[in-house]
Formats: sequence, C-alpha cells, structure tokens
Amino acid sequence: MIQQDTIVALATASGSGAIAVIRLSGNDAITIADNSFRSVTSNKSLIDQKTHTIHLGHIVDGEKVIDEVLVSIFKNPNSYTGENIVEVSCHGSSYIQQEIIQLFLRKGCRMADAGEFTLRAFLNGKLDLSQAEAVADLIASDNEASHQIAMQQMRGGFSSEIAKLREELMNFASLIELELDFSEEDVEFADRTQFKALIDRIVFVLKRLIDSFAVGNVIKNGIPVAIVGEPNVGKSTLLNALLNEERAIVSDIAGTTRDTIEDEISIGGIGFRFIDTAGIRETQDVVESIGIKKTFEKIEQAQVVIYLFDSESSITNLNLVKVEIEKIKNKYPQKPLKIIANKIDKLSDAQVALIKSEVANVHLISAKSNLGVDELTDALLNLINTGGLRNNQTIVTNSRHYDALLKAFEEIQKVKYGLDSGLSGDLMAIDIRQVLFHFGEITGEITTDDLLGNIFANFCIGK
Amino acid sequence: MIQQDTIVALATASGSGAIAVIRLSGNDAITIADNSFRSVTSNKSLIDQKTHTIHLGHIVDGEKVIDEVLVSIFKNPNSYTGENIVEVSCHGSSYIQQEIIQLFLRKGCRMADAGEFTLRAFLNGKLDLSQAEAVADLIASDNEASHQIAMQQMRGGFSSEIAKLREELMNFASLIELELDFSEEDVEFADRTQFKALIDRIVFVLKRLIDSFAVGNVIKNGIPVAIVGEPNVGKSTLLNALLNEERAIVSDIAGTTRDTIEDEISIGGIGFRFIDTAGIRETQDVVESIGIKKTFEKIEQAQVVIYLFDSESSITNLNLVKVEIEKIKNKYPQKPLKIIANKIDKLSDAQVALIKSEVANVHLISAKSNLGVDELTDALLNLINTGGLRNNQTIVTNSRHYDALLKAFEEIQKVKYGLDSGLSGDLMAIDIRQVLFHFGEITGEITTDDLLGNIFANFCIGK
Repeated sequence: MIQQDTIVALATASGSGAIAVIRLSGNDAITIADNSFRSVTSNKSLIDQKTHTIHLGHIVDGEKVIDEVLVSIFKNPNSYTGENIVEVSCHGSSYIQQEIIQLFLRKGCRMADAGEFTLRAFLNGKLDLSQAEAVADLIASDNEASHQIAMQQMRGGFSSEIAKLREELMNFASLIELELDFSEEDVEFADRTQFKALIDRIVFVLKRLIDSFAVGNVIKNGIPVAIVGEPNVGKSTLLNALLNEERAIVSDIAGTTRDTIEDEISIGGIGFRFIDTAGIRETQDVVESIGIKKTFEKIEQAQVVIYLFDSESSITNLNLVKVEIEKIKNKYPQKPLKIIANKIDKLSDAQVALIKSEVANVHLISAKSNLGVDELTDALLNLINTGGLRNNQTIVTNSRHYDALLKAFEEIQKVKYGLDSGLSGDLMAIDIRQVLFHFGEITGEITTDDLLGNIFANFCIGK
Repeated sequence: MIQQDTIVALATASGSGAIAVIRLSGNDAITIADNSFRSVTSNKSLIDQKTHTIHLGHIVDGEKVIDEVLVSIFKNPNSYTGENIVEVSCHGSSYIQQEIIQLFLRKGCRMADAGEFTLRAFLNGKLDLSQAEAVADLIASDNEASHQIAMQQMRGGFSSEIAKLREELMNFASLIELELDFSEEDVEFADRTQFKALIDRIVFVLKRLIDSFAVGNVIKNGIPVAIVGEPNVGKSTLLNALLNEERAIVSDIAGTTRDTIEDEISIGGIGFRFIDTAGIRETQDVVESIGIKKTFEKIEQAQVVIYLFDSESSITNLNLVKVEIEKIKNKYPQKPLKIIANKIDKLSDAQVALIKSEVANVHLISAKSNLGVDELTDALLNLINTGGLRNNQTIVTNSRHYDALLKAFEEIQKVKYGLDSGLSGDLMAIDIRQVLFHFGEITGEITTDDLLGNIFANFCIGK
C-alpha cells in the first residue's frame, strides 16, 4: 500500500448545494492547498497555521480566482486519516467543485479511491477494521435502529470485546506453545481450569453475537413486507398513515426526498420495505394469471405478508376475500400474515360485525381517518423479534463478521473438545491459532490486500 | 426583519455523502451547539473557544450519541453572516442530518428560510445586494463564463462602480438642493461643468452596462441551438465529439452526472443548449406534418440553427437536402444557420467534391473520427458576440439590475436634458433623486421587504 501520495475528493453529496467540501489527505496536503490559496486575513502560509484552524481566502489558479473559500487545517496525526488533511469549503456549484478538484489534481494530488480516506485511517491505526466498516454503515443508515448499531460498532463496542477475548486467548496460546518447547519435561504452564473458563466465555459470547445476526440483518436491510391488494383498496393511504406516525416532523425539512416513501418507511426505528403486489383473484385470463404468479413471487421474497382489502366494496362478497386468504395461507403456511380490512368508517355497525365474524383474525382500520393504525404499527413490530435491540445488546449486522464468527465458533468447539479429551498441546495450538485468525479478521489485525480492497470498494468516494 | 433568533439548515447538497455540513447562525448559535456537544479533546465549552477553530466530539441528545462530528466556530462579526456561526460536519447519511437538525430545532433554533444566511449577511453589511445576488448565481453557475461573471460580481466589481457613481451624484444632488435653500440669492454651489462631466460619465457607464446584458443573458442562460436532422444522422455522436473537446477530464471524476450531456454542453466556456428536432421532409402524412410544425416551433426558440445530414445516405439525393435548407432559410432568414455534412469519412474524394459544389457553405465533418469538429467549435463561438467577456469587461446578467439600469438611464437623460436646457435646480433635483433611487436598488441601499423576499426566495436553503 503506497500512502505517500496526497489524495483529493469531494466529501459532501454530489450535486448543487449552498456549500461543498473538498478534502485532501497526505503528506503534501497542506503544501498543495497553500500553493493555490490566497488568505484574506493573514500573511502566514497555511503551513505555519495551527492545526484545527479555519482560514478565509481565495482558491486561485495563477491570476484566476476560482472561488472564495474557507480552508480547514488538520495536522498529522490529529486528523481523521492520521495524515495532514485540508478541507476546502467552497460554494456548492458542481462547476466550482470540479474546477477546484481539477486544480488540485494538476498540483500533484491524485483522485481518492472509494473509501480511501477511511482505509488510510485504518492503516494509520486510527480505527480498527470493524470500526472502519461501521463508518460505511453509518453513512448508509436510514433509520434509528441501523444508525444506533452502526454508531455502537464505530465506537468500538463490538470489536473491543473480540479484541479482548483475542488477547486473553493469545496468552494461553503462547503458554501452550511454550509447553511444547518443554514437552519432554511434561510441565503445564497454562492453567487448564482457567483455560476452560475462558473457552466457555468465548463460546458464550460467540453464540450471542452469532444469534444477534438474524436481528441485525433485519435491522440493516429492512423487513420486506408484501402488501397483497387490488388497486384502490387504500395501499398508499395506509403507507402514508403509517408514515405519519413517525415522520411528520421530517416533512418540514427541505431536502427530504419523499420519492421512496411508498417503498420503504421506518416504524419504531425499524425499516420496513413494502412491496406492492396485485391481488390474486380467480381468473381464466392468461395475462392475469401471469400477474398472480408475480404476486406469489413477491410474497416469496417477503418476510411478512399483509392482505389488504376494501371492506366497503367487499362486504357483499366476503367469500372471495376468504378464498384469497386461504390461498395465501395454503401456499405460505410459515409466513406471518396480517389481514386488514380498510375503509371501515364507511360501514354500519352490523357490517363491521359481519366482517369480524366471517374473516378470522381480521384487523380493522380506516387509513384515511387514522383508525386502528397505531395498533397495526404495534402488531408489525411484534412480528419481528427485536428483543436484542431493545436491550441495548451488541448486534452483528455485517455478513463478513458473521462468517468470521461462525468459523471462530467452529474452531473454538474443536479446542473445547480437545481440552475435554486431553488432546496434546501441539494439536490444540493449531485450532487456537485458527480462532485467533478469525478474530483478527474481524478487528483487522489480520488482513490481506484483497480483503481490504473488497471492504473499501463499497464505500463512497470522499470517505 | 427579526434577526434575533438562531437559524439552522443543511448547507451541503441533500442526499447521502461522506460528510454533510449543518449550519447554525444567530446570537445563540454557539450556546445551542454547546448544549448538545461533548468534546473529545477539550474540557472547555465551545463558548470559550477561539473563533475559526475546529473541535472533535459527539453530538448528543441526553445520553444518546447521535454522531461523532467536527464543530467549527465562527464568532460575530467574523463570519459569513456577521453573526455567531457554528458548522457541524457530520457523517453524511440523511438520517443523521435530520436527527441533528431536529435536535437543534428542539433546542431553540428555527429552520432557515431560503437564502436567509445570505440575507443576514446583507442586512449586517457583509455584502451589498448585488454581491448577495451573485452568491446565488455562483452556486448556479455551470460553465466558465457564468462562473467568471458571478465571481466578478460577488467580489463587487460591478456594484462598486455603481456605488461610486451614486456617491458622486449624491454630492451634486446635495449641492443642488442646497442651492434651493438659497434660491433667492441665485448662487450655484454645484459646478455645472463638473456636473455635466459626471453625467456624461454616468451615461457612458450605463450604456456599456446595459449593452452588456445581451451577452450576459446569453452567458447566464446558455445559447439555444436547434439541431435539425433525421434520426441516425449522428446528432449524439456530434454532441459527444463537441463535448470531448472540453470535458474529457471531468468524466474521470465521480459524481459528475452525465444525464444532461445531450442537452447542454459547454464550449469555450459558453453554455450551449442543444434542442433536438426531427427533419422537415416533404410529406402528405398528417402525423408527420405535425412533426414538421414542431420542428419549426423549436427553430423559433433557438438562437442558432444547425442543419445536420448524413452525407453517405444523402449523396444520391442531395436535392432533398437542398430543398430542406431552402425551406429553413426562407422561413428564418435572420437566424444564423450552420449546414453540416456528417460521416464524410465514408465518402470518396469525388463525392466530397460533389457535396461541396452542390451544397453552399457546407461544413464537412466526421463526428466519429473527430474530423472538422475543432473548426465547428470555433464557428459556433464566432456566431456569438462574446467580445465583452473576452476583454474582461463588467457584464450584467441579472434582469433586476438590467431593469434598474434602464430606468436610471432614462432618468439621467432627463437630468442631462434639464442641465442643457438650464432647468431650475428644484426640478432637476427630482430627476437626480430618481437616478439615485435606481442605483440604490442595485446595491441595496434602497430596498423593500418585498424586494428582499423576492430575491432571497430564489436561493437554496442553507445559503
């Protein structure tokens, strides 16, 4: 890994904003910025300025003034990457962003690769690998739960636990390997009782972390929910009603894009991805039966199914509704199914009673009048086991970590078995080394260029 | 105008990026930020930190950590708005942006209106009105020319000239009004020769600025160019060829959106908006003749017309090409028309000669092999009179300024006429006040809430 060069990238979201931030990192970051900077307030060069200070001036290319900017200086090692960093806060037009980046490229910078700033932070020991990965998760987080988990991981909660276990295990490994050197004298440096206690603790922690992945995965990726229902039964109104419970305040803030509201919404801090499907009416029509096949495919992908019908228009034909519900139940007996009658405000009491008696486990709502929506929210959350999240436990969301934990778990079982059956130290040492290896993969003590390449390729440029 | 409250907004482009910047401005900006900030490196409160310094820490809501951030402090009056400013540089997820903004709203900030930071800068005397307007132009600038003009205007080039003339004129106005007080004594405090010289200078400057608006408008809004041509004659290839001349380096930078490349491209720093049209073949078909009508409508809107044909497929029927060209010429004799034969690399020398002799003023290119594209670029630029831009003169691009300049010009003519015809001081004074009023409108000495509201409503939030 060459880290001698100075990298540059746009650090803020692409597109036009009031301001944009361009970030340089590397040995020459301050020198390169200084060459193209004319301060308004000071005669000193940027190189002579203190770390963590901000300077008003112009970015110039020869005689041409590109922009009036604020330049922030961070000096090695007190920066995100641990290198010299300069952040140029310029006016947010795409044209100006490009002009400044191109200027710095001409002056000796190189375009940063995806995640290269964070990679450098890792290589310079500012973050361990799982913390670095949490940075990407944090930027991608779009609800309270995923944000909370990423934040916890970035602050080291999860990897420090692994690092501690790794260190303790490493001590035992050394002692056991020492025994090998004195094998003819038959001594035991490693206290087998203490060793067994440590292994039990490791098994316990690993089991907990591995189990947490199911919840973690749901939190990170959202819960896919298929809504089965004809057009006009009120799917959009329902989504808006669910949404309003949570996000009313958000809509006041400019820049909040509402494009995807119908697709993914956050309920109680958990992301739900709603998949719209057509109904599954009995039909002879070929085209329509293709539609039904698609509906079933979408149900297949979902973790929860909502069957939504318009109680007003269905009241005279509840048998049709029941047939459809049976069809879903028969095909997917394992999937949690929520049956919802919408528009109940349009019904008489007698009609409501009829629906209740005819359709088992029906949940009555009026999305428009916000009747029964709170109860539905609770019901959806109850379908998901989020116990771990609520109890503030460490939750694993990263499948790379999950894989490493599974492998470590497998190997630690071998060690446990070896210890119980009095296996010789040299054989046990091999299994212990494997556990240490998989622990090291998580925290980044053990990495390969390929692994790092894979991890950081998923980052955005500029981070 | 109430300026006592503290405003908050996202300052960077909306959407997900590596980092995002949230900006607070107002008396309590630092106090509010400090209440939700836990420093990692210092025990001092943000209030006790120096201006223009940066601090690493966490944004917290009670016990909950929202993000690890960098906080920049700017103290009144040394800030963009002239008030206390805090910039919070957080991880760039939309979720985190919203959480932090909502936290500050709960802690006593108010969402900033569009352009409110710049409005405050204007009200606090950090910028004059035309400079403030230039900030919006700068953010909107998407090519070299519009950027250069906005930059020049923001640095005060244009309004300082007006302000100076206004001041000189104001001196004369005072003297002339003083004469009124002594009107019975028939004195002349204002030297009429000097006054005439000033008026001539004002007329000269106004004329130059008013004339520059034609160019300014073109630069700001781009030059509409209609390309008339059948499908597959190579319109896209031509646009790409023109584009590659200018922007090859840009395409290497992530975040450069290429969505609109086929619509608007920058040539020699000037924006050209290409409007794609169908051909105008002779036809009996009703649907197709509607197409021809549309083509003519688009030509109507354009400032330049390019007629592009495929020389290979047209070589056997050049008469058709000539008929079409005649049609355009007859209908729009005033519009600059550029006739271009594409794909000449597919022709024999004899065929090239035939086209040259048959089609007058034809420009031969091969967009694919980049033949003749440079010459076309030069030809397009020559069609536009950009003399003013090249000579680094002040150029007016803002139609509000243009209107004020026109009105000032009208009034100064009256003053000039009054002076020449020996009009009495009291009548002249009225006209002079009108000129001063229109000058003041440009620089912002004279404003109304409505005017300010209109101007800043066009800004983005966060600026």
